[in-house]
Amino acid sequence: MSGSESYTLHYWPSIPGRGEYIRLAFEAAGQPFEENNKVESLVDHIMTDTVVGHPPHFAPPLLEIRRKESGREPSGGASAERFYLSQTPAILAYLAPKLGLTGLPADEVQGTEGDLKLAQLNQLTLTALDLSNEAHDTHHPVAVGAYYEEQKDEALRRAEDFRKNRVPKFLRYFETVIRSNGRGDGKRLIGPSLSVADLVLFQVLDGLSFAYPRLMASLERKGDYGGVFGLKRHVGGWDKVKGYVESGRRRKFSNGLYRHYPELDAEA
Amino acid sequence: MSGSESYTLHYWPSIPGRGEYIRLAFEAAGQPFEENNKVESLVDHIMTDTVVGHPPHFAPPLLEIRRKESGREPSGGASAERFYLSQTPAILAYLAPKLGLTGLPADEVQGTEGDLKLAQLNQLTLTALDLSNEAHDTHHPVAVGAYYEEQKDEALRRAEDFRKNRVPKFLRYFETVIRSNGRGDGKRLIGPSLSVADLVLFQVLDGLSFAYPRLMASLERKGDYGGVFGLKRHVGGWDKVKGYVESGRRRKFSNGLYRHYPELDAEA
Repeated sequence: MSGSESYTLHYWPSIPGRGEYIRLAFEAAGQPFEENNKVESLVDHIMTDTVVGHPPHFAPPLLEIRRKESGREPSGGASAERFYLSQTPAILAYLAPKLGLTGLPADEVQGTEGDLKLAQLNQLTLTALDLSNEAHDTHHPVAVGAYYEEQKDEALRRAEDFRKNRVPKFLRYFETVIRSNGRGDGKRLIGPSLSVADLVLFQVLDGLSFAYPRLMASLERKGDYGGVFGLKRHVGGWDKVKGYVESGRRRKFSNGLYRHYPELDAEA
Repeated sequence: MSGSESYTLHYWPSIPGRGEYIRLAFEAAGQPFEENNKVESLVDHIMTDTVVGHPPHFAPPLLEIRRKESGREPSGGASAERFYLSQTPAILAYLAPKLGLTGLPADEVQGTEGDLKLAQLNQLTLTALDLSNEAHDTHHPVAVGAYYEEQKDEALRRAEDFRKNRVPKFLRYFETVIRSNGRGDGKRLIGPSLSVADLVLFQVLDGLSFAYPRLMASLERKGDYGGVFGLKRHVGGWDKVKGYVESGRRRKFSNGLYRHYPELDAEA
């Protein structure tokens, strides 16, 4: 755990979105965190100017990190330094070792090959987030700022390619990752323990099952991706994740990153 | 420099593509590296199975990293350990401190806030690469595996949104980053020195000037993005980058990530 830091996640209200990848990491690690969902403070201040210091931020999620400056204040007053970090993959790579979510034993992370292993974890997180981005682009293939209804024809074409080519390619890849991880017991992307990459893949798969229920059910029935769907069940059944899901705190999928438009869905 | 590691970049032949972001880092740092452009070895072996060890890789660029195992072999034979890493942002985050391309003084990178500063550098690199991805998607908005001609109508719509909304939003953001970097003399995204994020932004801007010459010339004339275009000129004029560009080694833009289709271009 990270006793010397405290965290506030700044993100849009209601939707899980990209903020959920960060929330899941905190929840799975049992790390307390606060959340600010006031949209106006996000857009008008934190994201567009330099109130938060350098560098400013392009888009949420935004993580506020407060560090206690121990030993620096002879007066004994515990002041805190405040930093801000955006970009989901950058936030997850930063948090993984602090939350014990690298998938790897601590001595391996701290050893001479630690930087390489963390880079490989980062690689896996990034690839799972690429699938998340492509899922979003199926309902917004032309303009992120326009309505779905204004780009429905394009969405139909993009979703077809997504179902036929992209999702199978990603699942095939992650299946190979899981099967070739000699220490993961068929349940982890990297190393023997739960990692941020596992959590992201869990959330992506769950989002896809919401958005594309017919596609995902037919892919699961085919049996070619036993490792992938096994990882999803395993992460979902993992104590703290299960507790989080059952608590009602987890935001429901609706009209965000993952959207269910029946006309975009079909069996594989 | 990184005396104890040697590198081979595995990437497609001819095009600059995403491999160029890695090449530029090596060139700007004066770090020798080899390159393997045999496509079949990439696709048939390195990317799709586990010949290269765990984890396998979804797509190039792929960086092969060889480390000399000093002191481990009592026989004196210098064997080398071999690792592979993919995902452009993961590779750049890994290389930045080794190549001295963090933008920051070494003592700052190694200090107690070093992990935070590197995470912020990572944030900036990721945002510049997001613009790179969006530039690609303008000519492939529907299916990455299909021809441009098969998705030209969709590309026309997406390119219009890209020109009117997305490019100005990204440039406005990077302008703020450059102007609010108190140590960058108006030429750097982070810290006082050249960073991988500066190099990525340079390459993205150059790619956009190839793909969208009318758009980029009109944006430069407007004068709102003096910091952004100044950074581009500064990085391009930087000794080792200039030498690389003039050497003829740098691959020309053609039919890759950045493509010039006159029908997609227009003044801002």
